[in-house]
Amino acid sequence: MSAVKLEECRERIRTELDNVVDFWLKYSHDTVHGGFFTCIGKDGKVYDELKYVWLQGRQVWMYCRLYRSMERFHKPEILEAAKAGGAFLRKFARVSGSSGQWKCAFCLTRDGKAVKIQRTIFSECFYIMAMDELSRVTGDKDMQLEAEQMMEQLIFWVQKDSSGLGRPQLPGDVPTNGMAVPMMLLCLVQQLTEGRGKEVVQKYRELGSWCVQQILQHVQRDGTAILENVSLEGAELPGCQGRLQNPGHALEAGWFLLQFSAERGDEELQRTAIDKFVELPYQYGWDKEHGGLFYFLDVDGHCPTQLEWSMKLWWPHCEALIAFLMAYSQTKRPELLERFSQVYEYIFSHFSDAESGEWFGYLTQEGKVALDFKGGPFKGFFHVPRCLYMCERILDDLLENKD
Amino acid sequence: MSAVKLEECRERIRTELDNVVDFWLKYSHDTVHGGFFTCIGKDGKVYDELKYVWLQGRQVWMYCRLYRSMERFHKPEILEAAKAGGAFLRKFARVSGSSGQWKCAFCLTRDGKAVKIQRTIFSECFYIMAMDELSRVTGDKDMQLEAEQMMEQLIFWVQKDSSGLGRPQLPGDVPTNGMAVPMMLLCLVQQLTEGRGKEVVQKYRELGSWCVQQILQHVQRDGTAILENVSLEGAELPGCQGRLQNPGHALEAGWFLLQFSAERGDEELQRTAIDKFVELPYQYGWDKEHGGLFYFLDVDGHCPTQLEWSMKLWWPHCEALIAFLMAYSQTKRPELLERFSQVYEYIFSHFSDAESGEWFGYLTQEGKVALDFKGGPFKGFFHVPRCLYMCERILDDLLENKD
Repeated sequence: MSAVKLEECRERIRTELDNVVDFWLKYSHDTVHGGFFTCIGKDGKVYDELKYVWLQGRQVWMYCRLYRSMERFHKPEILEAAKAGGAFLRKFARVSGSSGQWKCAFCLTRDGKAVKIQRTIFSECFYIMAMDELSRVTGDKDMQLEAEQMMEQLIFWVQKDSSGLGRPQLPGDVPTNGMAVPMMLLCLVQQLTEGRGKEVVQKYRELGSWCVQQILQHVQRDGTAILENVSLEGAELPGCQGRLQNPGHALEAGWFLLQFSAERGDEELQRTAIDKFVELPYQYGWDKEHGGLFYFLDVDGHCPTQLEWSMKLWWPHCEALIAFLMAYSQTKRPELLERFSQVYEYIFSHFSDAESGEWFGYLTQEGKVALDFKGGPFKGFFHVPRCLYMCERILDDLLENKD
Repeated sequence: MSAVKLEECRERIRTELDNVVDFWLKYSHDTVHGGFFTCIGKDGKVYDELKYVWLQGRQVWMYCRLYRSMERFHKPEILEAAKAGGAFLRKFARVSGSSGQWKCAFCLTRDGKAVKIQRTIFSECFYIMAMDELSRVTGDKDMQLEAEQMMEQLIFWVQKDSSGLGRPQLPGDVPTNGMAVPMMLLCLVQQLTEGRGKEVVQKYRELGSWCVQQILQHVQRDGTAILENVSLEGAELPGCQGRLQNPGHALEAGWFLLQFSAERGDEELQRTAIDKFVELPYQYGWDKEHGGLFYFLDVDGHCPTQLEWSMKLWWPHCEALIAFLMAYSQTKRPELLERFSQVYEYIFSHFSDAESGEWFGYLTQEGKVALDFKGGPFKGFFHVPRCLYMCERILDDLLENKD
């Protein structure tokens, strides 16, 4: 791929990011109760008013990140929206109860009443991301402290005792190491330590290494497969759960590991990240017939039991785009740029909606739009803008160094 | 449709039922730990050993029903399998805990250790169905008593206080009337009272009427739509939850209501059942382009948020086949037989697998097999054989009266 072609990519990505930000600024703000609508139809119409805490936290984080690090988004409108979202979260997301003071709801009514609580840590993860990033743009030390305190609770739930999450201990429910938990914690370590003083960096240093070790346990079958769930000892689990593969998730872990390896100057980890978490999931996850990444696969070729296994979802493609471009930028190996280009072509010919803006999220295996909304209970202002933001920055670096 | 054509249907349905029973007798029995494997691949291979309590209970029920009411299935092999399944359930399904002695697990390991508990009543419903039907073939009065005692607990959870199910009471989680609960309770009333003495029939008479009233609350928008979830007062709910339609579920409720109306000689209920729960869901639920019933729809035409909304699942087609044939047998209206014929053609050209037996469960909107297993976490020995069994019996009646 030539510098001219890379320059074209950057321009398209930049324009796309502008359009995506405009879409959410225009349609998602609840000016009555605060927070964001995320169930938004193909033309921008809100079709459900529930507020999902994951998506509230992610939108606050993304607005702040754009505001803080890209000059064209350093606008009062974006800062005010992020602050309003943060205020909504602080007012309503945490639910007091038998689980203590840190548990967050999964879903709230438009005016902030808890509808559902998940017995996992993810609402809390996105709450922390939002608070930490918001504290960076507002300078609010209380908010930073709150993020760090909630983080302590999360670490306790994950490493010491998960009973506070409310899941009953059952004799057949063996604790497992799922990819999502160490990935999210690693993401939080990077969030909380970025640019902070030595003390904070030191505080989370060991946790970062632990997360990496946990993620690496998912390399299985003599290095030929990434499995989504393994035992706490890093062994393969029986049945469907043990054989499950989620290529998009592996690719996302891939670029998390690449960032981490760059920070610590760990070349071996960089090689593992590229071989096992970037190239390998693409090899088994890319649909040779219709293009695009499968959502789920079974390592032994059984049919997954997830009804949506063969669908093409937007977010694995976002993660793949970042992963290949980051891997290329660190190694300059041309085949990684070729993969980037392939994912890029698939995305812009399938997910991006030139007519009404933003991306469709869910395609059939053949690439037809299966669900035509732009936002839903699990699709908010996050994977698309994060992908475009990351790629634009990496392309800036690449093109600057090329000149 | 001529008598000759109906006779052909009956023969094909009878042969299909024989083959489906053979499939499960051959592949699903766990002779080591008891109970049934239900995750069974397209050629009969077990791909996961977890035991789902819904499916264990349903298989026991179905074996007993076939054993008890169809002479060609009155075989020791089927009775023994049902008894072994019942013993497995009695030994392992109930989990003692803060919810008292009647809560059942949702999923067990192969050797009976609880893996997951749902905070709903459905595992218990299928446990009751299994115990009542098994008590009818074994004459075990203790088992019948156990079924009735668990039923009392269910009624208490549904009508008096659901806190024992373990779901936290949240301010934004408004109690709703979902179709599934009154449908299942009505099914249990019919199960527990069939052929029993006056005392038992009387005991559940009021509950049966209550279930029917709850089901009728789902007729909304001036009788133009069946909505899956309504408020406890029978009003439409806001958002996606309130607009959700599940045509297969409405059709299943349709034939439950038709059975009930026949028992009580309620002609008005019969008309409502046919107009609103059989013909109406077909009108909005049948895919005019590709054929087959959609899984979910939104009454206002928004895209549902369920990723599988446009897929064609086996069970709505099973329920439609029963509903149209029962409605025809009660009214002899030819257009109802035409619909039966249309669903029948779709089923035998799409779901039934002539090569390896049983049915595929999950097709794309276009009718291609999307998941190729014959049994899974939600597909066991139930909807297919129940449909074939019900249709064979109705066709027997129709053809006998025609001669």
